Amino acid sequence: MANKIILTGDRPTGRLHVGHYVGSLKRRVELQNSGEFDKIFIMIADAQALTDNADNPAKVRNNIMEVALDYLSVGIDPTKSNIFVQSYVTELTELTFYYQNLVTVSRLQRNPTVKAEIQLRNFETSIPVGFFCYPISQAADITAFKATTVPVGEDQMPMIEQTKEIVHKFNSVYGETLVDPQILLPSNKACLRLPGTDGKAKMSKSLGNCIYLSETEEEVRKKIMSMYTDPNHIRVEDPGCIEGNTVFTYLDAFCNDDHFAEYLPDYKNLQELKDHYQRGGLGDVKVKKFLNNVMQEELRPIRARRKEYENRIGDVYEILREGTRVARETASQTLAEVKHAMKIDYFETPEFLEEQKEKFGVEK
Amino acid sequence: MANKIILTGDRPTGRLHVGHYVGSLKRRVELQNSGEFDKIFIMIADAQALTDNADNPAKVRNNIMEVALDYLSVGIDPTKSNIFVQSYVTELTELTFYYQNLVTVSRLQRNPTVKAEIQLRNFETSIPVGFFCYPISQAADITAFKATTVPVGEDQMPMIEQTKEIVHKFNSVYGETLVDPQILLPSNKACLRLPGTDGKAKMSKSLGNCIYLSETEEEVRKKIMSMYTDPNHIRVEDPGCIEGNTVFTYLDAFCNDDHFAEYLPDYKNLQELKDHYQRGGLGDVKVKKFLNNVMQEELRPIRARRKEYENRIGDVYEILREGTRVARETASQTLAEVKHAMKIDYFETPEFLEEQKEKFGVEK
Repeated sequence: MANKIILTGDRPTGRLHVGHYVGSLKRRVELQNSGEFDKIFIMIADAQALTDNADNPAKVRNNIMEVALDYLSVGIDPTKSNIFVQSYVTELTELTFYYQNLVTVSRLQRNPTVKAEIQLRNFETSIPVGFFCYPISQAADITAFKATTVPVGEDQMPMIEQTKEIVHKFNSVYGETLVDPQILLPSNKACLRLPGTDGKAKMSKSLGNCIYLSETEEEVRKKIMSMYTDPNHIRVEDPGCIEGNTVFTYLDAFCNDDHFAEYLPDYKNLQELKDHYQRGGLGDVKVKKFLNNVMQEELRPIRARRKEYENRIGDVYEILREGTRVARETASQTLAEVKHAMKIDYFETPEFLEEQKEKFGVEK
Repeated sequence: MANKIILTGDRPTGRLHVGHYVGSLKRRVELQNSGEFDKIFIMIADAQALTDNADNPAKVRNNIMEVALDYLSVGIDPTKSNIFVQSYVTELTELTFYYQNLVTVSRLQRNPTVKAEIQLRNFETSIPVGFFCYPISQAADITAFKATTVPVGEDQMPMIEQTKEIVHKFNSVYGETLVDPQILLPSNKACLRLPGTDGKAKMSKSLGNCIYLSETEEEVRKKIMSMYTDPNHIRVEDPGCIEGNTVFTYLDAFCNDDHFAEYLPDYKNLQELKDHYQRGGLGDVKVKKFLNNVMQEELRPIRARRKEYENRIGDVYEILREGTRVARETASQTLAEVKHAMKIDYFETPEFLEEQKEKFGVEK
């Protein structure tokens, strides 16, 4: 049976926050520990981050170790998952180069994810070519490791579609070579996208509305206690609204029934708490304190592991180096197969010279 | 004083013809033998050829050795010029990848050479991304070898402009790293573009209107004797027109006064011959025979050298292999400087680990 291989990763443009955690990291650790996958490649996508941070490479450089520490803190185990730095797997740029011949400019322009990201970044007409081409670069990342499984959010579906198109095109032109990947969507709707602590859809460093995995207990507590709730819920006895109420959205993502038994035994489960809030008579502070207990329980071991790894930064560096070495070995094998299929392996096999000798009539 | 370095090359999509010869190869040999250049890199641009021949890699593969033989036949000397195969200098795709972040999509769309080439190839909306991006890939080719001098035709000026823009942008964002190249235009107007033997502006294999450097004496003679002249020059006594008359365009490119002394002593020089033709009384056959003598004289030693090299195809293969090795060494050095300037050299220098240890408060 074919290997089951995961490719996933993050752009090192900042520390990872609880949005990353519930949206992908937690699941990633579960997948890692499920034993269902033969290989897991986790990419610190510095080269991709540079496509729209070309004028600020220091930002990317400064966040490589942060992201690696975040990975190890949440439970990514380097003996089970292979963490690597994208820019060091130079084979990826070669694959990107050749895949660019299989995609048209107009096809890229129609990619909804690219369209949305262009809008998000206010690029309009001044889109860097590298950014415009990143679906192709992503296809290189996925296929280089023969990934069968790509765990991403629904918004990334068009990217995986682009990869599948490239795989089909390549295989039909050059013969069966690349592996067709499958998207693995999140199982829990609540985990798709966590809003910022101010209720805004987008978490962003500049808005100061993210809770980072690396923050102290006190920093996290402060952010939770000042979270956006229902602006019309003025007095405790007023009925409150839970839709768009960040505290409840976070509870949806983080709490389970055991948390009630432990921290808020007056309620059996989240539904009972929500009902009371909607009826009126339940204050925000009480709910926030509960959320704080729940989140600190989840974040405490992460924080502790991070501290440990921060004290062993040389080891983390070696983990990255070794992971990158292994990733490169794998990508290099795929690239050799790709170049062989494309017949651009003149110096690798004796065939090319034999062909030429025959063509120009020289005895073998 | 800084080194003077040339980068030039051809796409291996067919054997080279006399158009290539008068347009660039002859000059290239002169530059090589001038002793004015410290290094000369001549690229067989297979990777670039694939950007619009992705579905026919065999065509590219089959022409690598043809182009190498053509180079050696015209007098490219592997002890003075470094012939290499582009796809094996994988550093070029890395440079392309990072330069793509420094150019906008709309800037590429405005490139007149790209526009013209798109029209020429009937791509319209289905331009492959790789082809669309080739000015950036060309900037990688030029800068990888720190070329100071790029000998090209006037139609390629916008390409060199694009390279210069990338060099300036890179150096201003990341610090002085890349060398700003200068274009070297042909000195002889007549050599800019030779028409096909049928008088059509474009030489093309499919039209059968090219005289290849590798053709036999008899093949060349036949093509010359059936060349397009002045369609209104019916009888010998009619006045003839030399504008758009292919035979005279070829004479402009190939003949000199010595040729008259040797093969057509009734005339001192080309002007006298043209005057007679325009007055009337000079038949096409006589002029064509003269052109045949002139061109055979030029092509004879090329043909002989080609035969020699065809009999030593294994040596040619080794010349390519060694040239590629040297080219790679050079490009690899430039890439290291580029990545250092961009600060993406985490594993190469001790600085990165030191920075991280400092950041996370670990004693050195």
